[in-house]
Amino acid sequence: MFVIGERINGMFKEVKKAIEERDAEAIQKLALRQLEAGADALDVNVGPTKGGALNNMQWLIETIQEVTDAPICVDTAKFEVMAEALKRCENPTIINSSKASPDALDRYVPLAVETNSQLIALTIDETGVPQDVDGRVAMGATIVTKAMGHGLPIPDLYIDPVILPVNVAPKQPAAVLGAISQLRMISDPPPKFVIGLSNVSQNCKERSLLNSAFVAMCVGAGLDAAIMDAFDEQLMHAAITAEVLLEKQLYCDDYIAAYMSNR
Amino acid sequence: MFVIGERINGMFKEVKKAIEERDAEAIQKLALRQLEAGADALDVNVGPTKGGALNNMQWLIETIQEVTDAPICVDTAKFEVMAEALKRCENPTIINSSKASPDALDRYVPLAVETNSQLIALTIDETGVPQDVDGRVAMGATIVTKAMGHGLPIPDLYIDPVILPVNVAPKQPAAVLGAISQLRMISDPPPKFVIGLSNVSQNCKERSLLNSAFVAMCVGAGLDAAIMDAFDEQLMHAAITAEVLLEKQLYCDDYIAAYMSNR
Repeated sequence: MFVIGERINGMFKEVKKAIEERDAEAIQKLALRQLEAGADALDVNVGPTKGGALNNMQWLIETIQEVTDAPICVDTAKFEVMAEALKRCENPTIINSSKASPDALDRYVPLAVETNSQLIALTIDETGVPQDVDGRVAMGATIVTKAMGHGLPIPDLYIDPVILPVNVAPKQPAAVLGAISQLRMISDPPPKFVIGLSNVSQNCKERSLLNSAFVAMCVGAGLDAAIMDAFDEQLMHAAITAEVLLEKQLYCDDYIAAYMSNR
Repeated sequence: MFVIGERINGMFKEVKKAIEERDAEAIQKLALRQLEAGADALDVNVGPTKGGALNNMQWLIETIQEVTDAPICVDTAKFEVMAEALKRCENPTIINSSKASPDALDRYVPLAVETNSQLIALTIDETGVPQDVDGRVAMGATIVTKAMGHGLPIPDLYIDPVILPVNVAPKQPAAVLGAISQLRMISDPPPKFVIGLSNVSQNCKERSLLNSAFVAMCVGAGLDAAIMDAFDEQLMHAAITAEVLLEKQLYCDDYIAAYMSNR
Protein backbone atom coordinates (compact mmCIF):
# COMPACT_ATOMS: atom_id res chain seq x y z
CA MET A 1 0.00 0.00 0.00
CA PHE A 2 1.07 3.54 -0.63
CA VAL A 3 1.33 4.96 2.88
CA ILE A 4 0.96 8.73 3.24
CA GLY A 5 2.15 9.69 6.73
CA GLU A 6 -0.37 11.93 8.48
CA ARG A 7 1.72 13.41 11.26
CA ILE A 8 2.92 16.71 9.81
CA ASN A 9 -0.32 18.46 10.66
CA GLY A 10 -0.69 21.64 12.69
CA MET A 11 -3.65 20.03 14.41
CA PHE A 12 -1.09 18.19 16.58
CA LYS A 13 0.13 20.42 19.40
CA GLU A 14 3.86 19.74 18.99
CA VAL A 15 3.65 20.27 15.24
CA LYS A 16 1.75 23.53 15.68
CA LYS A 17 4.47 24.71 18.04
CA ALA A 18 7.24 23.62 15.66
CA ILE A 19 5.60 25.46 12.77
CA GLU A 20 5.01 28.67 14.70
CA GLU A 21 8.54 28.65 16.14
CA ARG A 22 10.08 27.66 12.79
CA ASP A 23 11.71 24.63 14.44
CA ALA A 24 13.01 23.00 11.27
CA GLU A 25 14.78 20.19 13.09
CA ALA A 26 11.56 19.00 14.76
CA ILE A 27 9.73 18.90 11.41
CA GLN A 28 12.61 17.21 9.64
CA LYS A 29 12.86 14.55 12.33
CA LEU A 30 9.13 13.93 12.09
CA ALA A 31 9.42 13.58 8.32
CA LEU A 32 12.31 11.13 8.50
CA ARG A 33 10.82 9.10 11.33
CA GLN A 34 7.61 8.58 9.36
CA LEU A 35 9.57 7.46 6.31
CA GLU A 36 11.60 5.06 8.44
CA ALA A 37 8.38 3.68 9.92
CA GLY A 38 7.07 2.82 6.46
CA ALA A 39 5.53 5.96 5.00
CA ASP A 40 6.00 6.41 1.24
CA ALA A 41 4.87 10.03 1.17
CA LEU A 42 4.20 12.82 3.67
CA ASP A 43 0.95 14.66 4.13
CA VAL A 44 1.54 18.31 5.01
CA ASN A 45 -1.23 20.34 6.60
CA VAL A 46 -0.65 23.59 8.49
CA GLY A 47 -3.77 23.15 10.60
CA PRO A 48 -4.85 26.04 12.83
CA THR A 49 -1.42 27.69 13.03
CA LYS A 50 -0.68 31.41 13.33
CA GLY A 51 1.55 33.09 10.76
CA GLY A 52 -0.46 32.64 7.55
CA ALA A 53 -1.50 29.39 5.88
CA LEU A 54 0.58 29.96 2.75
CA ASN A 55 3.69 31.13 4.62
CA ASN A 56 3.52 28.14 6.92
CA MET A 57 2.88 25.67 4.11
CA GLN A 58 5.78 27.03 2.06
CA TRP A 59 8.10 26.83 5.05
CA LEU A 60 7.02 23.26 5.80
CA ILE A 61 7.55 22.16 2.21
CA GLU A 62 11.00 23.75 1.98
CA THR A 63 11.98 22.39 5.37
CA ILE A 64 10.95 18.85 4.44
CA GLN A 65 12.59 19.00 1.02
CA GLU A 66 15.93 19.72 2.68
CA VAL A 67 16.02 16.18 4.07
CA THR A 68 14.02 13.96 1.71
CA ASP A 69 12.80 13.69 -1.85
CA ALA A 70 9.74 11.68 -0.83
CA PRO A 71 6.44 12.79 -2.39
CA ILE A 72 4.63 15.57 -0.55
CA CYS A 73 0.87 15.48 -0.20
CA VAL A 74 -0.10 19.16 0.01
CA ASP A 75 -3.15 19.19 2.26
CA THR A 76 -5.22 22.37 2.27
CA ALA A 77 -8.79 23.28 1.46
CA LYS A 78 -7.71 26.66 0.05
CA PHE A 79 -7.12 26.67 -3.71
CA GLU A 80 -4.85 29.71 -3.66
CA VAL A 81 -2.65 28.20 -0.95
CA MET A 82 -2.48 24.97 -2.95
CA ALA A 83 -1.57 26.69 -6.21
CA GLU A 84 1.12 28.87 -4.62
CA ALA A 85 2.54 26.13 -2.41
CA LEU A 86 2.98 23.77 -5.36
CA LYS A 87 5.39 26.31 -6.88
CA ARG A 88 7.80 25.63 -4.03
CA CYS A 89 7.67 21.86 -4.50
CA GLU A 90 10.62 20.07 -6.03
CA ASN A 91 9.59 16.67 -4.72
CA PRO A 92 6.77 14.77 -6.46
CA THR A 93 3.43 16.20 -5.34
CA ILE A 94 -0.05 15.05 -4.53
CA ILE A 95 -2.86 17.60 -4.35
CA ASN A 96 -5.02 16.91 -1.30
CA SER A 97 -7.76 17.64 -2.24
CA SER A 98 -10.50 18.65 -4.65
CA LYS A 99 -14.17 18.14 -3.97
CA ALA A 100 -16.38 16.41 -6.55
CA SER A 101 -18.26 19.55 -7.59
CA PRO A 102 -17.72 20.24 -11.31
CA ASP A 103 -16.49 23.79 -10.64
CA ALA A 104 -13.94 22.56 -8.08
CA LEU A 105 -12.71 19.85 -10.45
CA ASP A 106 -12.48 22.44 -13.25
CA ARG A 107 -9.90 24.27 -11.13
CA TYR A 108 -8.06 21.40 -9.44
CA VAL A 109 -7.68 18.99 -12.34
CA PRO A 110 -5.98 21.55 -14.59
CA LEU A 111 -3.73 22.52 -11.64
CA ALA A 112 -2.72 18.86 -11.27
CA VAL A 113 -1.99 18.59 -15.00
CA GLU A 114 0.02 21.85 -15.08
CA THR A 115 2.12 20.92 -12.05
CA ASN A 116 2.53 17.22 -12.88
CA SER A 117 0.86 16.40 -9.60
CA GLN A 118 -1.27 13.49 -8.62
CA LEU A 119 -4.74 14.52 -7.46
CA ILE A 120 -6.92 13.34 -4.60
CA ALA A 121 -10.60 14.08 -5.21
CA LEU A 122 -13.14 13.52 -2.45
CA THR A 123 -16.65 12.19 -2.99
CA ILE A 124 -18.11 15.26 -1.32
CA ASP A 125 -19.76 18.30 -2.87
CA GLU A 126 -21.87 21.27 -1.77
CA THR A 127 -24.54 18.83 -0.58
CA GLY A 128 -22.07 17.09 1.75
CA VAL A 129 -20.91 13.48 2.00
CA PRO A 130 -23.27 10.96 0.38
CA GLN A 131 -24.92 8.67 2.91
CA ASP A 132 -24.72 5.63 0.65
CA VAL A 133 -22.73 3.77 -1.99
CA ASP A 134 -24.68 5.15 -4.97
CA GLY A 135 -24.01 8.79 -4.10
CA ARG A 136 -20.29 8.08 -3.84
CA VAL A 137 -20.30 6.18 -7.14
CA ALA A 138 -22.09 9.04 -8.90
CA MET A 139 -19.53 11.54 -7.61
CA GLY A 140 -16.71 9.17 -8.51
CA ALA A 141 -18.03 9.07 -12.06
CA THR A 142 -18.04 12.89 -12.18
CA ILE A 143 -14.46 12.93 -10.91
CA VAL A 144 -13.23 10.43 -13.51
CA THR A 145 -15.06 12.23 -16.32
CA LYS A 146 -13.56 15.59 -15.36
CA ALA A 147 -10.09 14.06 -15.02
CA MET A 148 -10.33 12.58 -18.51
CA GLY A 149 -11.77 15.81 -19.91
CA HIS A 150 -8.85 17.87 -18.64
CA GLY A 151 -6.24 15.29 -19.65
CA LEU A 152 -5.14 14.02 -16.23
CA PRO A 153 -3.77 10.47 -16.63
CA ILE A 154 -6.21 8.27 -14.69
CA PRO A 155 -3.40 6.46 -12.83
CA ASP A 156 -2.53 9.90 -11.35
CA LEU A 157 -6.05 10.23 -9.93
CA TYR A 158 -6.97 9.14 -6.43
CA ILE A 159 -10.61 9.01 -5.40
CA ASP A 160 -11.19 9.39 -1.66
CA PRO A 161 -14.62 7.99 -0.76
CA VAL A 162 -14.60 9.87 2.56
CA ILE A 163 -14.78 7.76 5.68
CA LEU A 164 -16.61 9.22 8.68
CA PRO A 165 -16.21 8.16 12.32
CA VAL A 166 -17.89 4.82 13.00
CA ASN A 167 -19.17 6.00 16.38
CA VAL A 168 -21.36 8.70 14.79
CA ALA A 169 -21.88 7.28 11.28
CA PRO A 170 -21.98 3.50 11.67
CA LYS A 171 -23.28 2.78 8.15
CA GLN A 172 -20.45 4.65 6.45
CA PRO A 173 -17.65 2.05 6.55
CA ALA A 174 -19.80 -0.36 4.53
CA ALA A 175 -20.63 2.44 2.08
CA VAL A 176 -16.93 3.19 1.61
CA LEU A 177 -16.12 -0.49 0.96
CA GLY A 178 -18.98 -0.73 -1.54
CA ALA A 179 -17.92 2.47 -3.29
CA ILE A 180 -14.33 1.28 -3.72
CA SER A 181 -15.46 -2.09 -5.12
CA GLN A 182 -17.89 -0.51 -7.57
CA LEU A 183 -15.73 2.43 -8.65
CA ARG A 184 -12.82 0.12 -9.46
CA MET A 185 -14.82 -0.97 -12.50
CA ILE A 186 -15.55 2.55 -13.74
CA SER A 187 -12.62 2.85 -16.13
CA ASP A 188 -9.69 0.85 -17.46
CA PRO A 189 -7.18 1.52 -16.07
CA PRO A 190 -9.10 2.32 -12.89
CA PRO A 191 -8.38 5.37 -10.75
CA LYS A 192 -6.59 4.74 -7.48
CA PHE A 193 -8.32 4.83 -4.10
CA VAL A 194 -7.17 6.53 -0.93
CA ILE A 195 -8.78 7.19 2.44
CA GLY A 196 -8.02 9.40 5.42
CA LEU A 197 -7.96 6.28 7.55
CA SER A 198 -7.75 7.71 11.07
CA ASN A 199 -11.09 9.43 10.60
CA VAL A 200 -12.91 6.09 10.95
CA SER A 201 -11.91 5.92 14.62
CA GLN A 202 -12.09 9.62 15.55
CA ASN A 203 -12.96 9.90 19.25
CA CYS A 204 -13.18 6.10 19.55
CA LYS A 205 -11.38 4.16 22.26
CA GLU A 206 -9.97 1.25 20.23
CA ARG A 207 -8.38 3.38 17.54
CA SER A 208 -5.58 1.05 16.54
CA LEU A 209 -7.89 -1.97 16.33
CA LEU A 210 -10.50 -0.08 14.30
CA ASN A 211 -7.91 1.40 11.96
CA SER A 212 -6.17 -1.97 11.51
CA ALA A 213 -9.31 -3.93 10.74
CA PHE A 214 -10.67 -1.23 8.44
CA VAL A 215 -7.46 -0.91 6.45
CA ALA A 216 -7.46 -4.68 5.85
CA MET A 217 -11.11 -4.57 4.77
CA CYS A 218 -10.41 -1.63 2.43
CA VAL A 219 -7.35 -3.30 0.90
CA GLY A 220 -9.57 -6.33 0.29
CA ALA A 221 -12.05 -4.07 -1.52
CA GLY A 222 -9.31 -2.47 -3.63
CA LEU A 223 -7.76 0.38 -1.65
CA ASP A 224 -4.37 1.55 -2.98
CA ALA A 225 -3.28 4.15 -0.47
CA ALA A 226 -4.10 5.67 2.91
CA ILE A 227 -3.27 8.82 4.77
CA MET A 228 -2.49 7.21 8.10
CA ASP A 229 -0.34 6.95 11.18
CA ALA A 230 2.84 5.20 10.09
CA PHE A 231 3.96 5.14 13.74
CA ASP A 232 1.19 2.68 14.63
CA GLU A 233 3.02 -0.62 14.23
CA GLN A 234 -0.10 -2.79 14.58
CA LEU A 235 -1.72 -0.77 11.80
CA MET A 236 1.33 -0.91 9.51
CA HIS A 237 1.54 -4.67 10.01
CA ALA A 238 -2.15 -5.09 9.18
CA ALA A 239 -1.76 -3.04 6.00
CA ILE A 240 1.35 -4.94 4.87
CA THR A 241 -0.26 -8.29 5.70
CA ALA A 242 -3.42 -7.47 3.76
CA GLU A 243 -1.28 -6.68 0.72
CA VAL A 244 0.67 -9.94 1.11
CA LEU A 245 -2.67 -11.78 1.14
CA LEU A 246 -3.56 -10.15 -2.19
CA GLU A 247 -0.10 -10.91 -3.61
CA LYS A 248 0.62 -7.17 -3.92
CA GLN A 249 3.65 -7.93 -1.80
CA LEU A 250 5.44 -11.26 -2.21
CA TYR A 251 5.06 -13.69 0.64
CA CYS A 252 8.12 -14.79 2.56
CA ASP A 253 8.25 -15.85 6.20
CA ASP A 254 9.74 -12.51 7.21
CA TYR A 255 7.56 -10.41 4.94
CA ILE A 256 7.33 -7.52 7.41
CA ALA A 257 11.10 -7.18 7.58
CA ALA A 258 11.34 -7.66 3.80
CA TYR A 259 8.79 -4.89 3.24
CA MET A 260 10.66 -2.48 5.47
CA SER A 261 14.05 -3.24 3.94
CA ASN A 262 12.80 -3.14 0.33
CA ARG A 263 11.59 0.41 0.59
CA MET B 1 -19.32 -13.40 13.32
CA PHE B 2 -20.27 -16.94 14.13
CA VAL B 3 -17.08 -18.34 15.63
CA ILE B 4 -16.61 -22.10 15.43
CA GLY B 5 -13.78 -23.05 17.81
CA GLU B 6 -11.23 -25.28 16.08
CA ARG B 7 -9.39 -26.75 19.04
CA ILE B 8 -11.16 -30.06 19.65
CA ASN B 9 -9.20 -31.81 16.93
CA GLY B 10 -7.17 -35.00 17.35
CA MET B 11 -4.51 -33.38 15.19
CA PHE B 12 -3.39 -31.52 18.35
CA LYS B 13 -1.19 -33.75 20.50
CA GLU B 14 -2.91 -33.06 23.84
CA VAL B 15 -6.34 -33.60 22.30
CA LYS B 16 -5.23 -36.87 20.71
CA LYS B 17 -4.00 -38.02 24.10
CA ALA B 18 -7.22 -36.94 25.83
CA ILE B 19 -9.35 -38.80 23.27
CA GLU B 20 -7.31 -42.01 23.42
CA GLU B 21 -7.22 -41.96 27.24
CA ARG B 22 -10.91 -40.97 27.48
CA ASP B 23 -9.97 -37.93 29.57
CA ALA B 24 -13.40 -36.31 29.65
CA GLU B 25 -12.33 -33.47 31.92
CA ALA B 26 -9.62 -32.31 29.51
CA ILE B 27 -12.08 -32.22 26.61
CA GLN B 28 -14.77 -30.50 28.65
CA LYS B 29 -12.35 -27.85 29.83
CA LEU B 30 -11.24 -27.25 26.26
CA ALA B 31 -14.88 -26.91 25.19
CA LEU B 32 -15.75 -24.44 27.93
CA ARG B 33 -12.57 -22.42 27.54
CA GLN B 34 -13.28 -21.90 23.84
CA LEU B 35 -16.82 -20.78 24.57
CA GLU B 36 -15.58 -18.37 27.22
CA ALA B 37 -13.03 -16.99 24.74
CA GLY B 38 -15.81 -16.16 22.28
CA ALA B 39 -16.62 -19.32 20.32
CA ASP B 40 -20.30 -19.76 19.41
CA ALA B 41 -19.95 -23.40 18.35
CA LEU B 42 -17.37 -26.18 18.63
CA ASP B 43 -15.75 -28.03 15.77
CA VAL B 44 -15.15 -31.68 16.67
CA ASN B 45 -12.65 -33.72 14.67
CA VAL B 46 -11.10 -36.95 15.89
CA GLY B 47 -8.01 -36.53 13.75
CA PRO B 48 -5.53 -39.41 13.53
CA THR B 49 -6.56 -41.05 16.81
CA LYS B 50 -6.53 -44.76 17.62
CA GLY B 51 -9.72 -46.45 18.78
CA GLY B 52 -12.00 -46.02 15.78
CA ALA B 53 -13.20 -42.78 14.21
CA LEU B 54 -16.87 -43.34 15.01
CA ASN B 55 -16.25 -44.49 18.61
CA ASN B 56 -14.04 -41.51 19.25
CA MET B 57 -16.44 -39.05 17.63
CA GLN B 58 -19.38 -40.39 19.61
CA TRP B 59 -17.42 -40.18 22.85
CA LEU B 60 -16.35 -36.60 22.09
CA ILE B 61 -19.89 -35.51 21.30
CA GLU B 62 -21.35 -37.08 24.43
CA THR B 63 -18.53 -35.72 26.57
CA ILE B 64 -19.03 -32.18 25.26
CA GLN B 65 -22.82 -32.34 25.56
CA GLU B 66 -22.46 -33.03 29.29
CA VAL B 67 -21.19 -29.49 29.84
CA THR B 68 -22.69 -27.29 27.12
CA ASP B 69 -25.58 -27.05 24.69
CA ALA B 70 -23.54 -25.03 22.19
CA PRO B 71 -23.81 -26.16 18.57
CA ILE B 72 -21.44 -28.94 17.55
CA CYS B 73 -19.77 -28.86 14.17
CA VAL B 74 -19.22 -32.53 13.35
CA ASP B 75 -16.03 -32.58 11.31
CA THR B 76 -15.28 -35.77 9.41
CA ALA B 77 -14.75 -36.71 5.77
CA LYS B 78 -16.44 -40.09 6.30
CA PHE B 79 -20.14 -40.10 5.51
CA GLU B 80 -20.91 -43.14 7.67
CA VAL B 81 -19.17 -41.61 10.68
CA MET B 82 -21.11 -38.38 10.11
CA ALA B 83 -24.47 -40.11 9.79
CA GLU B 84 -23.96 -42.28 12.88
CA ALA B 85 -22.41 -39.52 14.98
CA LEU B 86 -25.34 -37.17 14.33
CA LYS B 87 -27.60 -39.70 16.05
CA ARG B 88 -25.80 -39.00 19.32
CA CYS B 89 -26.19 -35.23 19.00
CA GLU B 90 -28.70 -33.43 21.20
CA ASN B 91 -27.09 -30.02 20.68
CA PRO B 92 -27.73 -28.16 17.42
CA THR B 93 -25.48 -29.60 14.71
CA ILE B 94 -23.49 -28.44 11.75
CA ILE B 95 -22.31 -31.01 9.20
CA ASN B 96 -18.69 -30.32 8.25
CA SER B 97 -18.59 -31.08 5.38
CA SER B 98 -19.85 -32.09 1.96
CA LYS B 99 -17.90 -31.59 -1.23
CA ALA B 100 -19.52 -29.88 -4.21
CA SER B 101 -19.81 -33.03 -6.33
CA PRO B 102 -23.46 -33.73 -7.16
CA ASP B 103 -23.27 -37.27 -5.76
CA ALA B 104 -21.81 -36.03 -2.46
CA LEU B 105 -24.47 -33.33 -2.19
CA ASP B 106 -27.16 -35.92 -2.95
CA ARG B 107 -26.11 -37.74 0.24
CA TYR B 108 -25.19 -34.86 2.54
CA VAL B 109 -28.04 -32.44 1.84
CA PRO B 110 -30.75 -35.01 2.65
CA LEU B 111 -28.79 -35.96 5.80
CA ALA B 112 -28.81 -32.29 6.86
CA VAL B 113 -32.56 -32.04 6.20
CA GLU B 114 -33.34 -35.29 8.09
CA THR B 115 -31.26 -34.34 11.11
CA ASN B 116 -32.20 -30.63 11.18
CA SER B 117 -28.54 -29.82 10.78
CA GLN B 118 -26.89 -26.91 9.12
CA LEU B 119 -24.55 -27.95 6.32
CA ILE B 120 -21.10 -26.76 5.30
CA ALA B 121 -20.35 -27.53 1.65
CA LEU B 122 -16.86 -26.96 0.26
CA THR B 123 -16.11 -25.65 -3.22
CA ILE B 124 -14.03 -28.70 -3.98
CA ASP B 125 -14.86 -31.76 -6.04
CA GLU B 126 -13.09 -34.74 -7.59
CA THR B 127 -11.01 -32.32 -9.69
CA GLY B 128 -9.73 -30.56 -6.56
CA VAL B 129 -9.91 -26.93 -5.40
CA PRO B 130 -10.60 -24.43 -8.22
CA GLN B 131 -7.66 -22.14 -8.85
CA ASP B 132 -9.83 -19.10 -9.51
CA VAL B 133 -13.01 -17.25 -8.58
CA ASP B 134 -15.08 -18.64 -11.46
CA GLY B 135 -14.52 -22.27 -10.50
CA ARG B 136 -15.62 -21.55 -6.95
CA VAL B 137 -18.69 -19.66 -8.14
CA ALA B 138 -19.68 -22.54 -10.44
CA MET B 139 -19.39 -25.03 -7.57
CA GLY B 140 -21.24 -22.64 -5.27
CA ALA B 141 -24.10 -22.56 -7.77
CA THR B 142 -24.19 -26.37 -7.80
CA ILE B 143 -24.29 -26.41 -4.01
CA VAL B 144 -27.16 -23.91 -3.81
CA THR B 145 -29.11 -25.72 -6.52
CA LYS B 146 -28.76 -29.07 -4.75
CA ALA B 147 -29.69 -27.53 -1.39
CA MET B 148 -32.85 -26.06 -2.89
CA GLY B 149 -33.64 -29.30 -4.71
CA HIS B 150 -33.50 -31.32 -1.52
CA GLY B 151 -35.38 -28.76 0.55
CA LEU B 152 -32.60 -27.48 2.79
CA PRO B 153 -33.45 -23.92 3.90
CA ILE B 154 -30.79 -21.72 2.31
CA PRO B 155 -30.06 -19.89 5.61
CA ASP B 156 -28.98 -23.33 6.94
CA LEU B 157 -26.39 -23.67 4.18
CA TYR B 158 -22.79 -22.58 4.57
CA ILE B 159 -20.54 -22.45 1.53
CA ASP B 160 -16.82 -22.82 2.34
CA PRO B 161 -14.77 -21.43 -0.55
CA VAL B 162 -11.67 -23.30 0.66
CA ILE B 163 -8.69 -21.18 1.59
CA LEU B 164 -5.24 -22.65 0.98
CA PRO B 165 -1.99 -21.56 2.66
CA VAL B 166 -0.76 -18.23 1.31
CA ASN B 167 2.87 -19.40 1.33
CA VAL B 168 2.19 -22.12 -1.27
CA ALA B 169 -0.92 -20.71 -3.03
CA PRO B 170 -0.52 -16.92 -2.98
CA LYS B 171 -3.34 -16.23 -5.46
CA GLN B 172 -5.95 -18.09 -3.42
CA PRO B 173 -6.87 -15.48 -0.78
CA ALA B 174 -8.00 -13.09 -3.54
CA ALA B 175 -9.97 -15.90 -5.17
CA VAL B 176 -11.73 -16.63 -1.88
CA LEU B 177 -12.64 -12.96 -1.39
CA GLY B 178 -13.94 -12.72 -4.95
CA ALA B 179 -15.95 -15.93 -4.57
CA ILE B 180 -17.64 -14.73 -1.38
CA SER B 181 -18.55 -11.37 -2.97
CA GLN B 182 -19.96 -12.96 -6.10
CA LEU B 183 -21.73 -15.89 -4.45
CA ARG B 184 -23.55 -13.58 -2.04
CA MET B 185 -25.65 -12.52 -5.02
CA ILE B 186 -26.54 -16.04 -6.11
CA SER B 187 -29.83 -16.33 -4.22
CA ASP B 188 -32.13 -14.33 -1.98
CA PRO B 189 -31.74 -14.99 0.89
CA PRO B 190 -28.09 -15.78 0.21
CA PRO B 191 -26.35 -18.82 1.68
CA LYS B 192 -23.93 -18.16 4.51
CA PHE B 193 -20.15 -18.25 4.11
CA VAL B 194 -17.60 -19.95 6.34
CA ILE B 195 -13.87 -20.59 6.03
CA GLY B 196 -11.36 -22.79 7.81
CA LEU B 197 -9.40 -19.67 8.62
CA SER B 198 -6.19 -21.09 10.09
CA ASN B 199 -5.41 -22.82 6.83
CA VAL B 200 -4.45 -19.48 5.23
CA SER B 201 -1.39 -19.30 7.47
CA GLN B 202 -0.44 -23.00 7.67
CA ASN B 203 3.34 -23.25 8.18
CA CYS B 204 3.67 -19.48 8.06
CA LYS B 205 5.56 -17.52 10.69
CA GLU B 206 3.16 -14.61 11.28
CA ARG B 207 0.07 -16.75 11.82
CA SER B 208 -1.87 -14.40 14.04
CA LEU B 209 -1.24 -11.39 11.82
CA LEU B 210 -2.20 -13.29 8.65
CA ASN B 211 -5.32 -14.77 10.24
CA SER B 212 -6.37 -11.41 11.69
CA ALA B 213 -5.96 -9.45 8.46
CA PHE B 214 -7.62 -12.17 6.40
CA VAL B 215 -10.63 -12.49 8.67
CA ALA B 216 -11.19 -8.72 8.44
CA MET B 217 -10.90 -8.85 4.65
CA CYS B 218 -13.31 -11.79 4.47
CA VAL B 219 -15.85 -10.11 6.76
CA GLY B 220 -15.62 -7.10 4.46
CA ALA B 221 -16.43 -9.37 1.51
CA GLY B 222 -19.37 -10.97 3.34
CA LEU B 223 -18.07 -13.81 5.50
CA ASP B 224 -20.53 -14.96 8.18
CA ALA B 225 -18.56 -17.56 10.13
CA ALA B 226 -15.12 -19.06 10.57
CA ILE B 227 -13.67 -22.21 12.03
CA MET B 228 -10.84 -20.59 13.93
CA ASP B 229 -8.74 -20.30 17.04
CA ALA B 230 -10.90 -18.54 19.62
CA PHE B 231 -7.89 -18.46 21.97
CA ASP B 232 -6.07 -16.01 19.68
CA GLU B 233 -7.12 -12.70 21.24
CA GLN B 234 -5.67 -10.55 18.45
CA LEU B 235 -7.70 -12.58 15.96
CA MET B 236 -10.92 -12.43 17.97
CA HIS B 237 -10.54 -8.69 18.34
CA ALA B 238 -10.00 -8.28 14.59
CA ALA B 239 -13.11 -10.33 13.82
CA ILE B 240 -15.27 -8.43 16.31
CA THR B 241 -13.93 -5.08 15.09
CA ALA B 242 -14.61 -5.93 11.45
CA GLU B 243 -18.21 -6.71 12.36
CA VAL B 244 -18.56 -3.46 14.30
CA LEU B 245 -17.34 -1.62 11.19
CA LEU B 246 -20.12 -3.26 9.17
CA GLU B 247 -22.69 -2.52 11.88
CA LYS B 248 -23.21 -6.25 12.46
CA GLN B 249 -22.33 -5.47 16.06
CA LEU B 250 -23.36 -2.15 17.54
CA TYR B 251 -20.58 0.32 18.21
CA CYS B 252 -19.88 1.43 21.74
CA ASP B 253 -16.54 2.50 23.17
CA ASP B 254 -16.10 -0.83 24.94
CA TYR B 255 -17.45 -2.95 22.11
CA ILE B 256 -15.04 -5.82 22.79
CA ALA B 257 -16.24 -6.14 26.37
CA ALA B 258 -19.85 -5.70 25.24
CA TYR B 259 -19.45 -8.47 22.67
CA MET B 260 -18.03 -10.87 25.22
CA SER B 261 -20.69 -10.11 27.83
CA ASN B 262 -23.59 -10.24 25.36
CA ARG B 263 -22.88 -13.79 24.34
